Amino acid sequence: MASNSFGTLLRITTWGESHGKAIGVVIDGCPAGLPLNNEDINLELKKRAPGKNPYISPRKEPDCAEIYSGLFEGKTTGSPISIVIFNQDHDSKPYESNKLLLRPGHANFTYLQKYGAFDYRGGGRASARETACRVAAGAVAKKILKEIDIEIVAYVCEIGGISISPYTPSSFSQLRKIVDSSPLFCPDLTISTKMSALIDQVKIDKDSLGGVIECVTSSLPIGLGDPIYEKLEANLAKAMLSIPASKGFEFGSGFKAAQMRGSDHNDLFTLEKGQIVTQTNHAGGTLAGITNGAYLITRTAFKPTSSIARTQQTVNLDGNKEEFTPSEKSRHDPCVAIRAAPVVEAMTALVLADAYLINRGVRL
Amino acid sequence: MASNSFGTLLRITTWGESHGKAIGVVIDGCPAGLPLNNEDINLELKKRAPGKNPYISPRKEPDCAEIYSGLFEGKTTGSPISIVIFNQDHDSKPYESNKLLLRPGHANFTYLQKYGAFDYRGGGRASARETACRVAAGAVAKKILKEIDIEIVAYVCEIGGISISPYTPSSFSQLRKIVDSSPLFCPDLTISTKMSALIDQVKIDKDSLGGVIECVTSSLPIGLGDPIYEKLEANLAKAMLSIPASKGFEFGSGFKAAQMRGSDHNDLFTLEKGQIVTQTNHAGGTLAGITNGAYLITRTAFKPTSSIARTQQTVNLDGNKEEFTPSEKSRHDPCVAIRAAPVVEAMTALVLADAYLINRGVRL
Amino acid sequence: MASNSFGTLLRITTWGESHGKAIGVVIDGCPAGLPLNNEDINLELKKRAPGKNPYISPRKEPDCAEIYSGLFEGKTTGSPISIVIFNQDHDSKPYESNKLLLRPGHANFTYLQKYGAFDYRGGGRASARETACRVAAGAVAKKILKEIDIEIVAYVCEIGGISISPYTPSSFSQLRKIVDSSPLFCPDLTISTKMSALIDQVKIDKDSLGGVIECVTSSLPIGLGDPIYEKLEANLAKAMLSIPASKGFEFGSGFKAAQMRGSDHNDLFTLEKGQIVTQTNHAGGTLAGITNGAYLITRTAFKPTSSIARTQQTVNLDGNKEEFTPSEKSRHDPCVAIRAAPVVEAMTALVLADAYLINRGVRL
Amino acid sequence: MASNSFGTLLRITTWGESHGKAIGVVIDGCPAGLPLNNEDINLELKKRAPGKNPYISPRKEPDCAEIYSGLFEGKTTGSPISIVIFNQDHDSKPYESNKLLLRPGHANFTYLQKYGAFDYRGGGRASARETACRVAAGAVAKKILKEIDIEIVAYVCEIGGISISPYTPSSFSQLRKIVDSSPLFCPDLTISTKMSALIDQVKIDKDSLGGVIECVTSSLPIGLGDPIYEKLEANLAKAMLSIPASKGFEFGSGFKAAQMRGSDHNDLFTLEKGQIVTQTNHAGGTLAGITNGAYLITRTAFKPTSSIARTQQTVNLDGNKEEFTPSEKSRHDPCVAIRAAPVVEAMTALVLADAYLINRGVRL
Repeated sequence: MASNSFGTLLRITTWGESHGKAIGVVIDGCPAGLPLNNEDINLELKKRAPGKNPYISPRKEPDCAEIYSGLFEGKTTGSPISIVIFNQDHDSKPYESNKLLLRPGHANFTYLQKYGAFDYRGGGRASARETACRVAAGAVAKKILKEIDIEIVAYVCEIGGISISPYTPSSFSQLRKIVDSSPLFCPDLTISTKMSALIDQVKIDKDSLGGVIECVTSSLPIGLGDPIYEKLEANLAKAMLSIPASKGFEFGSGFKAAQMRGSDHNDLFTLEKGQIVTQTNHAGGTLAGITNGAYLITRTAFKPTSSIARTQQTVNLDGNKEEFTPSEKSRHDPCVAIRAAPVVEAMTALVLADAYLINRGVRL
Repeated sequence: MASNSFGTLLRITTWGESHGKAIGVVIDGCPAGLPLNNEDINLELKKRAPGKNPYISPRKEPDCAEIYSGLFEGKTTGSPISIVIFNQDHDSKPYESNKLLLRPGHANFTYLQKYGAFDYRGGGRASARETACRVAAGAVAKKILKEIDIEIVAYVCEIGGISISPYTPSSFSQLRKIVDSSPLFCPDLTISTKMSALIDQVKIDKDSLGGVIECVTSSLPIGLGDPIYEKLEANLAKAMLSIPASKGFEFGSGFKAAQMRGSDHNDLFTLEKGQIVTQTNHAGGTLAGITNGAYLITRTAFKPTSSIARTQQTVNLDGNKEEFTPSEKSRHDPCVAIRAAPVVEAMTALVLADAYLINRGVRL
Repeated sequence: MASNSFGTLLRITTWGESHGKAIGVVIDGCPAGLPLNNEDINLELKKRAPGKNPYISPRKEPDCAEIYSGLFEGKTTGSPISIVIFNQDHDSKPYESNKLLLRPGHANFTYLQKYGAFDYRGGGRASARETACRVAAGAVAKKILKEIDIEIVAYVCEIGGISISPYTPSSFSQLRKIVDSSPLFCPDLTISTKMSALIDQVKIDKDSLGGVIECVTSSLPIGLGDPIYEKLEANLAKAMLSIPASKGFEFGSGFKAAQMRGSDHNDLFTLEKGQIVTQTNHAGGTLAGITNGAYLITRTAFKPTSSIARTQQTVNLDGNKEEFTPSEKSRHDPCVAIRAAPVVEAMTALVLADAYLINRGVRL
Repeated sequence: MASNSFGTLLRITTWGESHGKAIGVVIDGCPAGLPLNNEDINLELKKRAPGKNPYISPRKEPDCAEIYSGLFEGKTTGSPISIVIFNQDHDSKPYESNKLLLRPGHANFTYLQKYGAFDYRGGGRASARETACRVAAGAVAKKILKEIDIEIVAYVCEIGGISISPYTPSSFSQLRKIVDSSPLFCPDLTISTKMSALIDQVKIDKDSLGGVIECVTSSLPIGLGDPIYEKLEANLAKAMLSIPASKGFEFGSGFKAAQMRGSDHNDLFTLEKGQIVTQTNHAGGTLAGITNGAYLITRTAFKPTSSIARTQQTVNLDGNKEEFTPSEKSRHDPCVAIRAAPVVEAMTALVLADAYLINRGVRL
């Protein structure tokens, strides 16, 4: 079925395969009057671009997005915004030799069973390349949110068991700067160095690492999100679990909540500068699915990259045992979590911008 | 906005407040020809009914559901199935005295901010009572799944830090029996005893506990779930995070995946009884959002019940400090996770039945 | 699939069969703060109630609707509004004798082919009785629209070839009064008398008549409706063609436009009391799918009632020729168009209220 | 809101402005395994291409569509199909001089009021150029329908009051051939000559004509379409009224039904070659919203082209009276209905293919 769209009033539809001619996204429902240009998109795309540093895939895609529609005199018109990114550095040859093998942890088995066909080149539609389109759309969502002073920052908080201490950002602009300057999108430089060393080791081992992305949001208006089935956290959970390689999602106290008592977990209300606020934030920014004015805090877990350079046992399409050794030329991230940080940020922005637009009509 | 519906081809819409006249659900899109009667619904409802044992809320609701439409000669007709459950044992008086106070961890703050009004009696629409409707709808989804031999069992795997060892069920019918016979829905009787003792203690302490629900599914057909934004795990994540008090969701290896290496995490393919299967199941039942034929395994974390018997600091609607002491007559679960088990099961059934119906049209 | 819902931000879901226990509707997405009570619903229901006069079906349903949820202290809360109407005067016996025959113009043939089963009693789900739920929901939509001073009046403009002259209402409150006082919902009393005479004749002939309902709307805000696939007229067309027995929809000049020239059809803009308005209204209230501030004018055609008292040739479920003679006790409208007027009004209100809520977020 | 998508399981999203860089469509939910190439799309596009003959707009667009995604080895994969058509012969200058004027019958007034901005060049997003994307998507829908032997032909049945006699096609392939060979898509060559003469005259008069498009469908499987709000005719009505310049929709007997009696209108069932069929087809192919196996017959009315070469009175954006004289270089259709024929065909194909995919899951 039609499964390539996300959102309600602000809805994106992505298309394209890793080694096809191009990939792209149509953003529908963006309000009119928002200043927007190609550069806004390309700045965000650079963050997740491959080939940037030794810790991510060496595939080199300039990822130069172009807006084909929806703009007039530099501003959005309310019409759909179509963004196209042409694929350039795609080399399908490394995938040829193994095209009859089921790759451990990969989409080809289930796609073949479901559809009877699979574009195996670079993972086809199931490739993480699709997430570039999410980041492009997220750039637009972020601009909408900027209009109401919302900032979102996602960063690596754990890689291969090494994790940063929990912390609350003092300033979002500073956090933004630190995270953007780190090759690992990690705000703790000491921990970041340890993570880098571990990544270096795992590359030598022809292996890969998992990780966790934390995402915090500044100053949300109270009231975003809807009751029952459209709780803000429910839509965030769906958004995060739609990112390739994700295995879990939590917000606020998350799984730790299961070990706490109510008297510790309850965030007590108090008055601060004339505003009703909570003294703690175990809730993570919502109550009953609706923002309560506190920081929104989520964490998303990613499995270690399935594509590893070493030989693995598998079977071919007929079920016969074979060995799978990826071509030396195939290029992969040692830890997909790193490049997932901008994607988490983009998906969070899309969920929040949609919730913001939906919320306008809640009272007569 | 309209936020009380869930599902695509099989869609439920729930309605009703905790202390209103009735609650109910409309199930739309159920295929014709399914045998169904009131008893099918009421058997499932009994599992989550309050007042059953000392470990859950003493509110006594016979929860007698009646099917008002969609049946003819004992079978579904393809028309919407409307189920109504009248509220009986609701006593709104305990809520009167505190109606001007913001209850820590509760919906009243955000509902008031969003809507300008809140039906405070028993939590109104935000009460976990709404989940009875999910269980009723889940009973129908389970019957659809039974037609293709899918069984789902959800159980308590952790309460207040006490957890069972990970295990794989040998037989689903046996697991079903054990779980249904346990007052805590816990399949490990030794651990269950420890959990009960902890719950007894926490009730004395006028406090509450969090917990985790694990859910396993037998023998799924390969190919359920859709790529990109409608991944099976994405829809499960949304379903689980829509349950009141949930704080996190993971499937397969979950957050542990973040600490693993690819060479350990990858589930290697092999041939077993003529079928291509994976030797391990870190994936948890899907690859790239589509079922791979392995057990589907999810875990959902629940915070400790926000309603506790002790006095807590808070503010009133005007922001002035006050103490919140619940009426002795208000009735709550010491650990909401327990009664969440049937709800997790129901929501899983709804997601899977929908995915099953959607999948039929995938190939020409 | 789930096909019993209508609307986007304001969404209704109806359920129930003609001869089942009850019928009902869940209205989701109604903004909070709207005063509402049972009487608001029942006043509208009375308009389409059967048994009111000799020109409509003699079935006597008090149609006493009760609101089961979504209200607190007399106002909507933003939670779903569930309305239940118990069926009372249903007599299934007249349908027993003919249950194996395909009724000309009726749903039983296609329902049986599609679902393999059909609740034949009174037409089951396919009965026009379902439209009572639309009228109940429309009562809520109308109250939302009243808040922004929008009034909608639908009336009979043609029955069996007898039609009223086209006219523009001078005052909506007066039009409302005339239409509500007419047993045929016809604003032209002379024509109405002729129509009544024709209906009397057709009843003697054991036959039925078709008709057309016109619907006008006062003073719409400019800007309702969305471009391309969600044009206001597109959603109105869908709404009207979803009403049982409808065969066509037009707005403004409608099918007559096909015979006009551009120089006659174009509505020229002018300035009136400081507002830009059009001198004529061939457009019928929208330009490119978006309201232009003029009256919204639509017409919906209804076929003659399929159920007629005379004997008709048909076949039984096995395809063998038989005669179909309805029981003398079965009760039908001589002209379904008449009772469709309140339904057209309700569906128009639902489309407009939804468009109004959607439109709020169009500009940053 | 997001209003540029159409369909449920098979969903299209169009984008692009008349004078922007490109226009395009994403087709999501197409089943895997369908052979498809650029030529399939371009053949259909040629039918509605401007510049083809004296009866339609002289703008010359080669309309060369390219499929950017969703194909592998010549077949669809189940992934979204992105089609891009670059704009070439767009000349915005003729629009410059009148950009401050409200064009009678045009979108600029309502778009400006709704969005605060309007891309006036060639009508921007509101231009009929968007319908090229519908035709491109319709080409894919038609290929899906061909797999189950469904053929759709739309043709001009009335222009400026000149109409063809009602007729039932004996052979669809022959009808296809006649219609495709007629410059007016009119199957009656005698009438077609009269229509051409009228068009010639109206061009001299600097005026335009309205028209009606009839659409017939061969041999539909019984059971397509869903009850209540998703009736096949309801979705067709929405589809047709979403086409620019459309003013009305009817199916089967349509508005004539209002003048008929039940005894004439009822289509009597009979047995023919072992199949239950109706002797007549006033129904137009559905009963209660579900296909009954008879031909599907619809008619859609189009207003005369709003853009006419003569001078018209209007006001400017400030409400001051001015004259609007289109540039001699602006290029328009003397009768938009003609080029609407392929669009009606495409939209019908999209509705039917969607209904076909949805219907698969109706029975267990």
